Amino acid sequence: MKIDLDRSKEPSLREQICAGIAERIRSGLLQPGEQLPSVRQLAQDLGVSLMTAVQAYGLLEKRGLVESVQGRGTFVRERAIATEASGDPFGWQLAIGDYLPRASFWSQSAVRLPPEILDLATASIHHSLLPLPLLEASIQSALKQAPQSLGRYAPFQGDPEFLAVVAGYLQRQGLSLSTHQLIITNGTQQGIDLFARTFLGPNDVLAMEAPAFSGAIDAFRLSHGHIVPVPVDREGIRLEILEDLSLQMRIKAIYVVPTYQNPTGSVMSLQRRKALIDFAVAAGALILEDEPHRELTLADKGTGRLPPPLKALDPDGRVVYLKGFSKFLFPGLRLGVLAADGALYRRLLAAKSIVDLGSPLWLQKALVPFFQNPQLPRYIDRLNSILLQRSRQVADTLSRRLSPAIRWQRPQGGMHLWVTLPPFLDADSLLPEAHRRGIHFLPGSIFYPGEPESNHLRICWTNLADAELPGALECLCDVLNEAVR
Amino acid sequence: MKIDLDRSKEPSLREQICAGIAERIRSGLLQPGEQLPSVRQLAQDLGVSLMTAVQAYGLLEKRGLVESVQGRGTFVRERAIATEASGDPFGWQLAIGDYLPRASFWSQSAVRLPPEILDLATASIHHSLLPLPLLEASIQSALKQAPQSLGRYAPFQGDPEFLAVVAGYLQRQGLSLSTHQLIITNGTQQGIDLFARTFLGPNDVLAMEAPAFSGAIDAFRLSHGHIVPVPVDREGIRLEILEDLSLQMRIKAIYVVPTYQNPTGSVMSLQRRKALIDFAVAAGALILEDEPHRELTLADKGTGRLPPPLKALDPDGRVVYLKGFSKFLFPGLRLGVLAADGALYRRLLAAKSIVDLGSPLWLQKALVPFFQNPQLPRYIDRLNSILLQRSRQVADTLSRRLSPAIRWQRPQGGMHLWVTLPPFLDADSLLPEAHRRGIHFLPGSIFYPGEPESNHLRICWTNLADAELPGALECLCDVLNEAVR
Repeated sequence: MKIDLDRSKEPSLREQICAGIAERIRSGLLQPGEQLPSVRQLAQDLGVSLMTAVQAYGLLEKRGLVESVQGRGTFVRERAIATEASGDPFGWQLAIGDYLPRASFWSQSAVRLPPEILDLATASIHHSLLPLPLLEASIQSALKQAPQSLGRYAPFQGDPEFLAVVAGYLQRQGLSLSTHQLIITNGTQQGIDLFARTFLGPNDVLAMEAPAFSGAIDAFRLSHGHIVPVPVDREGIRLEILEDLSLQMRIKAIYVVPTYQNPTGSVMSLQRRKALIDFAVAAGALILEDEPHRELTLADKGTGRLPPPLKALDPDGRVVYLKGFSKFLFPGLRLGVLAADGALYRRLLAAKSIVDLGSPLWLQKALVPFFQNPQLPRYIDRLNSILLQRSRQVADTLSRRLSPAIRWQRPQGGMHLWVTLPPFLDADSLLPEAHRRGIHFLPGSIFYPGEPESNHLRICWTNLADAELPGALECLCDVLNEAVR
Repeated sequence: MKIDLDRSKEPSLREQICAGIAERIRSGLLQPGEQLPSVRQLAQDLGVSLMTAVQAYGLLEKRGLVESVQGRGTFVRERAIATEASGDPFGWQLAIGDYLPRASFWSQSAVRLPPEILDLATASIHHSLLPLPLLEASIQSALKQAPQSLGRYAPFQGDPEFLAVVAGYLQRQGLSLSTHQLIITNGTQQGIDLFARTFLGPNDVLAMEAPAFSGAIDAFRLSHGHIVPVPVDREGIRLEILEDLSLQMRIKAIYVVPTYQNPTGSVMSLQRRKALIDFAVAAGALILEDEPHRELTLADKGTGRLPPPLKALDPDGRVVYLKGFSKFLFPGLRLGVLAADGALYRRLLAAKSIVDLGSPLWLQKALVPFFQNPQLPRYIDRLNSILLQRSRQVADTLSRRLSPAIRWQRPQGGMHLWVTLPPFLDADSLLPEAHRRGIHFLPGSIFYPGEPESNHLRICWTNLADAELPGALECLCDVLNEAVR
């Protein structure tokens, strides 16, 4: 077992080990009934004393997370530890260490739940609202015109024809980029991961919003970089805190979701955007800008009034930009795009070539007509007017039914709603009851790169069918109101 | 700049730094004319003395790889260093370190060459020989039956229906696996990378064949694990050398391509397979088995006489198995599968969820009818009889035209031919002449995880059209024969 330990500071090593193992248990990497390494093995793996290992297990036991069984070892707690566990043919795998600090997406995914659960967790738009007929027509046309692309590899950066239509699309979003600045990725998540692997290691500091997209936290943690959370306010990441930090440490990179931040929904102001770039230039830091929701604006007049992407303000190739299409166009195809400049671009492209040799050529060819279709902008406008209506229903229901002790904000765009419970409540502990009643949401704790706040939760109000949403929201209100009482 | 240094042993630190930078220059991560970090920056990044950094740059300069310019710094050498270089708006990126040790695939890819070059490097089968009509029919049928899958995410491990047909396919290859042992990946390359990231870190030893698949070397190097090359003979990886090694160090994992090894084409015997597994059990090591070519057998009676995959002999969930489909079915779709057991499976699945949230659902749905099509096995038989004929033509041409001082083996299967020049020749240095004459091949040096042997090259004889291959082979023979004379 590998746990990143910081020997220079508080909390103590035993506390750090306890927290690391607790995170693995919570995220499902260690399953109920699974045996932990012996204290001797743990001490050796982590380079700590036997006493520290014993104390760490003691803390975990005191917190009810593990149970030690006389003569057999220490196990992740469950109602009853199966006595057959020692007959597990794969038991030897226990001694094989790994480098996975957490995997919140995996543990929280609704995929593991029964299909009848109403899913307020997954960040997607119900398929009835997606441009499936445009996609089908595009695929049909590619089958006729580019069948050979089924039998060929793509260039690592992507198919030139696809890159050109994507560049055209980005142009309409306010970003002038050439195809030589673009790399096609398997969704935004791969873009985050490529950045993390290329630029972050154990001695590098990454500053990121807190709370933040949990998948990004997972990818950054896997790079073993040092992650520093920076709180967000209504205008985005708090610069004065970033500035204080930079007096204490060298910040290598800053990760932000400036437009409809995930999970809070806040939009970084133009002034803050400019100041963030000035800060990055002064600090010699990179910026990773993740913008999956720009198109999903609930303002009356489209994206016109949104401040431009940071990448459009980039003075010197400092911003690496990520655009995902899974959120509102085609989750079933998993393609996104990364934009960067200069040596940063070359290194990210080399990383892409190492991790999977490039994204599927045929999928890219199959999407060329889609991005050229003049109906695409009209589809997005129509989608936004449907979502605007839906967001009003959501706001009505919550205003009417939710206890005034529970805070939330009317969404301006994107697909999330961040709900804050009174401080004494723990959203994780409400999940079992929610599941019993037939709904699923994401507990806020997984959105914190550092010390979690547990009195929040995130719901996605675009994932369910029209007919399912009202019931799911009412059920959510009931669960939360009862907890408050 | 990040270079993995081993402070405990030979060669000296300055030699290691020189070798690390040389590898980056050769693999194109550092481009001609690009500025290197200052010696002060380098010394700080790597935690070495200023003197060591100065000496490392001195070695690079002596070897003609870099040039230092009075008052400006040290630059990767090219014919003339552009004096505008200092006006580069991205020059500040120089100070941003990265973690990419090498990217051979990226640097050697024929994608960078002019399109008229005849490509004997890319390991693929000419698209006219691939089952494109079966694929088109399958996609058409999925468009009708599963359009909603365009608008949905897949479970991280893959679509259950697709996993089931893949399990059926593997069954016919001699592997009985349930869908709960499988994870769909973006080609084999992603499977290698998932394994490397999950299980390898700076303190872990990975033993691998030498020479070996260059993309695997890149992925293992990116994990910063300690890679130990083990020579192969005609029966595969040399066990007595592995055994010697295991007396000196704890081997965590072993990577092998047992069936039609890349690049040598050797097939590991059944006896060696069993002994390798026994060794791994005794050493407590994992085995990563990569099997992209099993189906491509040139023996008369199909795959029947091949020894079974290591995974079929796996006693205790020790073998992680990778099957790629890009080589002979659909390079344009980039899907492969990984098989594992127990906690190893869970950890690899968590890693997959972190790196890209799963492979595209719709592609998987689009391939279900393809794998169910009874014509698929017939297609593979027909392909093999075409390849058998082609391999005879290749062997005829080489026997007839190639100098007897050059050694090669008649292929038994797979798609590669490993050519050995007399020891005084360097295949890398023949590439410019080959390009001038209109062909491209892979120099053998990129296939070595440790110290490279430079007198080999790999050609792929399945990538060109029927009409192009004879001319390309004759041109290759001319280039090699002239070098020998």
